Amino acid sequence: MTLPAEEAARLTPNAHMLGQQGSARALNTPALVLDLDLFDRNLSRMMAHCEASGLGLRPHAKTHKSIEIARRQLDAGAVGICVAKLGEAEVMGRGGIGSVLITSPVVKEDAIRRLIALNNDMPDLMVCVDNIDNAEELARAASPERGNARALKVLVDLDVGLHRTGIAPGEGAAKLAAFIAASPGLEFKGLQAYAGHLMHVADYAERRDKSLAAMKMLGDMRDMLLEQSISCDVLTGGGTGTWDIDPEAGVLTDLQAGSYLFMDTEYNAVSQKDGAAQAFETSLTIQTTVVSANTPGIATTDAGIKSMATDQKEFRIASGAPEGTAYFLFGDEQGGLLFSDKKESEGGEKHSLKPGAVLNLETPHCDPTVNLYECYHVVQNGTLVDIWPIDTRGRSA
Amino acid sequence: MTLPAEEAARLTPNAHMLGQQGSARALNTPALVLDLDLFDRNLSRMMAHCEASGLGLRPHAKTHKSIEIARRQLDAGAVGICVAKLGEAEVMGRGGIGSVLITSPVVKEDAIRRLIALNNDMPDLMVCVDNIDNAEELARAASPERGNARALKVLVDLDVGLHRTGIAPGEGAAKLAAFIAASPGLEFKGLQAYAGHLMHVADYAERRDKSLAAMKMLGDMRDMLLEQSISCDVLTGGGTGTWDIDPEAGVLTDLQAGSYLFMDTEYNAVSQKDGAAQAFETSLTIQTTVVSANTPGIATTDAGIKSMATDQKEFRIASGAPEGTAYFLFGDEQGGLLFSDKKESEGGEKHSLKPGAVLNLETPHCDPTVNLYECYHVVQNGTLVDIWPIDTRGRSA
Repeated sequence: MTLPAEEAARLTPNAHMLGQQGSARALNTPALVLDLDLFDRNLSRMMAHCEASGLGLRPHAKTHKSIEIARRQLDAGAVGICVAKLGEAEVMGRGGIGSVLITSPVVKEDAIRRLIALNNDMPDLMVCVDNIDNAEELARAASPERGNARALKVLVDLDVGLHRTGIAPGEGAAKLAAFIAASPGLEFKGLQAYAGHLMHVADYAERRDKSLAAMKMLGDMRDMLLEQSISCDVLTGGGTGTWDIDPEAGVLTDLQAGSYLFMDTEYNAVSQKDGAAQAFETSLTIQTTVVSANTPGIATTDAGIKSMATDQKEFRIASGAPEGTAYFLFGDEQGGLLFSDKKESEGGEKHSLKPGAVLNLETPHCDPTVNLYECYHVVQNGTLVDIWPIDTRGRSA
Repeated sequence: MTLPAEEAARLTPNAHMLGQQGSARALNTPALVLDLDLFDRNLSRMMAHCEASGLGLRPHAKTHKSIEIARRQLDAGAVGICVAKLGEAEVMGRGGIGSVLITSPVVKEDAIRRLIALNNDMPDLMVCVDNIDNAEELARAASPERGNARALKVLVDLDVGLHRTGIAPGEGAAKLAAFIAASPGLEFKGLQAYAGHLMHVADYAERRDKSLAAMKMLGDMRDMLLEQSISCDVLTGGGTGTWDIDPEAGVLTDLQAGSYLFMDTEYNAVSQKDGAAQAFETSLTIQTTVVSANTPGIATTDAGIKSMATDQKEFRIASGAPEGTAYFLFGDEQGGLLFSDKKESEGGEKHSLKPGAVLNLETPHCDPTVNLYECYHVVQNGTLVDIWPIDTRGRSA
């Protein structure tokens, strides 16, 4: 889908370059650049993997925050999408994305009002709950006596070791599920279990062992509910770090991977089964330009703290700089390049780049990097071919 | 100025609470909350300080990114505003802010085209230059022969030790100034010198000594130019870290402070003259809500990596949590609270907070935190009284 020109121009000063040959290197920067061919390969690869494994794919849209990308995922065969926050679900719903799971609890009084209003408009909305007080509040707000269009579909979020959200497996979780199943305003749909603490365990074997153990906790909880005649349609969780481990566990009905579309420095650092190469390619980069180079040995770019996630400190240059160049944050608005020495055969001095030189960085951590930008600059064969808005950017409430 | 209701609702789910008593604690969160009384005090204090010191105030709008706040600064007596990037200047110009200085170089071909177009619309735009190639490109693009409405006003950016942007003081800088002064398309306005590496030097005496030395470099350069009959109308620089040192240096014509309006954990940590208290108060906070609390000793909030700057790692709770509670990042979407022990007289166990509990954090670093949000929730006496858009959010290109 192509945006109206006026809307594209509101999102980026580069909209007028659409379709111009070679425009991918002429962009006003910093710019978030998505390589369409690599993106498509990642999209297809994960879908094919899920189909072959008998798993549904419910990709997490907290990564991409884009209606266009969600639509492409659904068109490819995804069973629905996940979002982290209610504000994202509202935007996705207005954008025509029907099947949305909110993976975090919604607790505030006004937020519960918004949730019920959204559920009245969206037949296929689901939300996670991890405590009985919250479930009671949702049950009251969603009650059919209040004239609501339908029951609110609810998953119990199970804590399988991360301790961030979720209720511990056992009697408490069973009681919570039973309460939901018995509430006229609510519809019990199943369990969520996200082992976020395991996604970036660097060693494959260790990641596999721990992940299988976490999934066993989920499977045991499912069986415990079944003994009480509560069945789970949905068992959802997993991520890009466990994409090839979750099928082996045989518990999940669907996989919540998000980062596989883009990849980033964090996920590129984790090892794969049998030492294999990464199955997914780095499709998303930050394009930046050298703006100042008056001090020998260093240069200054236009991408700093406001243009990339800084929760981890490794910044990798994907292309455009001499080998051995290091990237560092040079304040809010700028980055720095620290050049390596040239070989003696090259003259023995430091490498350098002049103002105007263009380079691309891996996103250090893709989700919070995407959340800084208004749009993706979609490129193919060196040309800017599309602008995709980051529709749920900043929708954390 | 009050936003149309529809526009406010596009920015925040909290717009419908405007004017409701007590609404400041009922917000959908995370939300950026600005205390109007503290903000006004900071605004007035810096303006009064500059007036008393004979300095102009040219506040840096890279901090607040808001047309409404820029307007309030100008109404209070500021001589103009600064922005870091061209994209910010475009938005400020369209918003009716007349006097804008772009503090970073504009080097890319398409960006120079945009700059000249903007200058034709804005009589009081200025830009910084730090190398001769860039100056030549600007001179060509701004040439009166191309039908431009006016010359482009240019400052030479001087490197007084940060080595990020700027040209070293001396002959090269003098040549650059002379070239600009002699170019029909350009108008030489003076010098910028920002000692960004000194702003957060924690010790006041050390900060003062180094800052006075940096300002002496600027003064010497001014004198060198004057010997060549090139005079500087504008000598701009300084910041919140040197607000009370710059008048003593007696070099700057105007002060570029930005963070003084809001303050943050970084600036709150630097010491003041004679060990005095901070002159500026923490007017800006991140409001967040506990969303999960199933694990003893910790709780989970709704403000994580996507809701605050993470370039520094100290997260301080301003209000709403028991004494001794620590805040940590719990992933992209959530924060964590680590509770301290209760006193024995209180029962000897850990403190706790339940889902729904509201707390406010200092912004760890205000500029990149503001850049994550769509708007300020302006509060007074516990009530949400206004919504101010963050107009130049994400305008880094």
